[in-house]
Amino acid sequence: MTEMLRDRLPARVRVVEVGARDGLQNEPDPIPTEAKVAFIEALAAAGLDTVEPTAFVHPKRVPQLADAAEVMAALTRQDGVRYPVLVPNAKGLERALQSGVREIAIFSAASDGFNEANIGMTVDASLAGYDALMERAKAEGLWIRGYVSTCFGCPFDGAVAPDRVAEVTSRLLAMGCDELSLGDTIGVAHPLQVEAVVAALVGARVPIEKVAFHFHDTRGTALVNVLAALPLGVGIFDASAGGLGGCPFAPGATGNLATEDLLYLLDGMGIETGVDREAVERATAGIAEALGRQPPGRVYNASRSATRAPVRWPVRSDEA
Amino acid sequence: MTEMLRDRLPARVRVVEVGARDGLQNEPDPIPTEAKVAFIEALAAAGLDTVEPTAFVHPKRVPQLADAAEVMAALTRQDGVRYPVLVPNAKGLERALQSGVREIAIFSAASDGFNEANIGMTVDASLAGYDALMERAKAEGLWIRGYVSTCFGCPFDGAVAPDRVAEVTSRLLAMGCDELSLGDTIGVAHPLQVEAVVAALVGARVPIEKVAFHFHDTRGTALVNVLAALPLGVGIFDASAGGLGGCPFAPGATGNLATEDLLYLLDGMGIETGVDREAVERATAGIAEALGRQPPGRVYNASRSATRAPVRWPVRSDEA
Repeated sequence: MTEMLRDRLPARVRVVEVGARDGLQNEPDPIPTEAKVAFIEALAAAGLDTVEPTAFVHPKRVPQLADAAEVMAALTRQDGVRYPVLVPNAKGLERALQSGVREIAIFSAASDGFNEANIGMTVDASLAGYDALMERAKAEGLWIRGYVSTCFGCPFDGAVAPDRVAEVTSRLLAMGCDELSLGDTIGVAHPLQVEAVVAALVGARVPIEKVAFHFHDTRGTALVNVLAALPLGVGIFDASAGGLGGCPFAPGATGNLATEDLLYLLDGMGIETGVDREAVERATAGIAEALGRQPPGRVYNASRSATRAPVRWPVRSDEA
Repeated sequence: MTEMLRDRLPARVRVVEVGARDGLQNEPDPIPTEAKVAFIEALAAAGLDTVEPTAFVHPKRVPQLADAAEVMAALTRQDGVRYPVLVPNAKGLERALQSGVREIAIFSAASDGFNEANIGMTVDASLAGYDALMERAKAEGLWIRGYVSTCFGCPFDGAVAPDRVAEVTSRLLAMGCDELSLGDTIGVAHPLQVEAVVAALVGARVPIEKVAFHFHDTRGTALVNVLAALPLGVGIFDASAGGLGGCPFAPGATGNLATEDLLYLLDGMGIETGVDREAVERATAGIAEALGRQPPGRVYNASRSATRAPVRWPVRSDEA
C-alpha cells in the first residue's frame, strides 16, 4: 500500500463561517435583523472562531445587508471570536469603524473578466484602489482578510493560471492582509488543480498557514478539494451554515460548501475544529425558519430525516 | 511538499451504472418499459461498459421492476457491455436465464442487523442460502457480481468492523463472485474508513482489482471517499445517472453518487473512463422526463443552469 492519508492530515483545522454574509446577501426577501443577530451569535456559540457577520456595502446594491450597522450594534460579541465584515472601499471602511469593527475583509479576483464584470475594472486597477483603505485599516490596527475570487476558473475568461493566483495572493499579502481566502467562485475546481495552486503559492513563498480555501459545491467537489488540500498544509476552510448562498450572479455558481458537511468530514477523520456540529445545525434551523425554507446542506438534511423509522428493504423474497 | 496526489492516481477507472435498477426501484409511480429501455440503451451508448438494467425480484415486493422480463426482451444489447441483473434466489435466477441474461448480481451485507431487517436472516444464513443458485449460475457460465451492503455503518448495528467486511467479501469471492461491490448503504463513510476497509481487504488477500465501491452521497461524502480509494488501487466505482435512487428504506439514506458527478471528478483529474459525460446527462434528462421531475445530481443540475446569462455581482460600489 501507498503512503496513508491518515498519516498526512493536520491535527486541527479552522473553519471560517461565511453564512451570515455570503450566505444571506442574495436573499430576495427581507430577513429581520434580530434573526441575523441570533444566527451569528448561535454560530459563534457553536465554537466557530471566525464568523463573518455582514458587509458595509451600498444598501441599494445589496439591500439584504442594508442593516449592517444595526446588526453590529445588536450583536453580543464573544471573546476570542473574529467578526470580519466585508468592505468594498474607504466609505465602507468608515461605516465599519463607526460600528466598532476590528476585523475586515477586502476582495479581489484572479481573473480580469470576473473583476471587470463585477466592479468594472481590472484586477490590477482594483488592487491599486485599495491603497488608502489599507493604510487607514492598518493605522486602526484592524485584522484584514483578503478574498481572491475565481482562483480555479472564471465564468468569463475560462481557465486561470495558478501563477496568476499566486501573484494576486502575494500582492494582497504585501498590501497587509493577515489571511487570504482563495475562492472557487463557480465551483469547477478539482483536486489536481488544488495541488497546482498550492504548488504555485509555495513557489511564490506565500506562507500556507495564512491561506484559506473557499470551495463551492456547485458540482459536488467542495469536500474532495478540501481533502486534496489537507495534506498540503492548508488548515483553514470557509463554509456556510446549511450551504446557504453561493454566487448566483456568476453563471452556474450556486452552493457554498455547507459548514455541517465540512465538519462531518473533519470530525469523521478525527481532525479537531473546536466546533459543535449539532449546534451549527441548530443555528441553521433557526435561520431556515426566518427564511421560510430549508437550505441545501447534505448533513443538515440527513440529520433532519434521520428520525424516520426504519423500514424493511423489500428486495429479497423466496417468492421471487 | 508531501507526495503528490497526481502521481498516485490510476490511469483508468471503470464506472458501473446502477441507475436503471438501484435508481428506479423505489419510484412509486409506474415508468413505461420503453422509457427504461431507452435509458439503459442511452447509458450503454454513452460508453458505460457495465449497466445494471433491472432485477428479477418478486413483482409484489418491487412493483417498479415487475417488467424485468419485458425490459430484457426489448433491450438491444451492445457488444462489450455487461448487463448484470439482481437476483435474490433460485427462482429469480431461472427467470433471468429465460430472459437470456449472462450476468447477474447477488447481495449480502456486512451487518446482521441490516440483513435481518432486509431479508429476515443473518448474513451467514443468507450466504449459505446462495449455494444452489451459485452452482447453477456457474454451470451456466454467468458473470457474477456480489453486493455487500453496510460496509461502513449499519442503521441498526452502528459501527461495522473492517475485518467483517473483508470476511464477507472473501466468502463471496470463494463462492465464485467475479466482482464485489462494497456499499456505504447509509452514506456515513469517511476517507479513513475507506483506508481501513481496503487495508482489511489486503490483509485478507482479497484482490483489489475485483473490488468496486458503492458510495452514497447522503452526507456529501461520496466523492471524497472515491478520492481516498483511488491511490489504494481501487479502480471500479458504482454510480447512478443523475443521482437517482439510494436506499430510502434505510433510515437517513438517500442519494446514490451521481454518475455525472463522479465523471466530472475523474475527467478533471485526467483519469480515463471511456464515458461521455454529456451523453450521460442526456440519458438522465430523458429518464427525468419520464419521471416528471429532476434528479439531484450536482453536475447534471449545474449543466442545466449554466445557460443562465451572466449578471454583475453587485457587491462593490464607490458609493458604499
